[in-house]
Amino acid sequence: MDPDAVAKAFVEHYYSTFDANRAGLANLYQEGSMLTFEGQKIQGSQSIVVKLTSLPFQQCKHNITTVDCQPSGSGGMLVFVSGNLQLVGEQHALKFSQMFHLMPTPQGSFYVLNDIFRLNYA
Amino acid sequence: MDPDAVAKAFVEHYYSTFDANRAGLANLYQEGSMLTFEGQKIQGSQSIVVKLTSLPFQQCKHNITTVDCQPSGSGGMLVFVSGNLQLVGEQHALKFSQMFHLMPTPQGSFYVLNDIFRLNYA
Repeated sequence: MDPDAVAKAFVEHYYSTFDANRAGLANLYQEGSMLTFEGQKIQGSQSIVVKLTSLPFQQCKHNITTVDCQPSGSGGMLVFVSGNLQLVGEQHALKFSQMFHLMPTPQGSFYVLNDIFRLNYA
Repeated sequence: MDPDAVAKAFVEHYYSTFDANRAGLANLYQEGSMLTFEGQKIQGSQSIVVKLTSLPFQQCKHNITTVDCQPSGSGGMLVFVSGNLQLVGEQHALKFSQMFHLMPTPQGSFYVLNDIFRLNYA
């Protein structure tokens, strides 16, 4: 397993799902998963998807600038992303940074244990 | 233990040490520690400090905008920071994002297992 390839595949899957069908992100999280979104802490797959699907914009497109990854111990992996978020109807894209802590599942896949998102205001 | 208070204390200690005496960061890392600095991967306390002390600027000042933290399992903690970095002699500060994965030591303190740093170019 090449960690950089796994990270890149995860990032592509995550943001393409986010941009096409946010509710489809539910199966990437579990009950113990945590999201901190602009400082707001949310726990559990269901609550996280409620938050993501109730954000005050409909269509959006994430453009990824950088993806860094490191092994985190216990088979986990840290993925650190920077990019910009284009909202439909808005002239300027919003810069963001986000980190994911991926943990292995018994099925040989990964789920998101930790997710922290911040807009980078200019 | 209040994780937010630990994260805040770590962040203050880390950046005040960075700005005053970068070599003093050595004891926050261990042999298995990893730093990814602007995409460059470095492993081990000694190599990390060589990298940090050889950055192409002398005096700098980190100003912190946000600190987010989450427990990462196994007693660890993820700390996600955004802020700006003012280099002496430069007019404009550089925006950055950085994440730390802190793991407990037997002495009841924490060390940095993972460190990922990125400048957020405008």
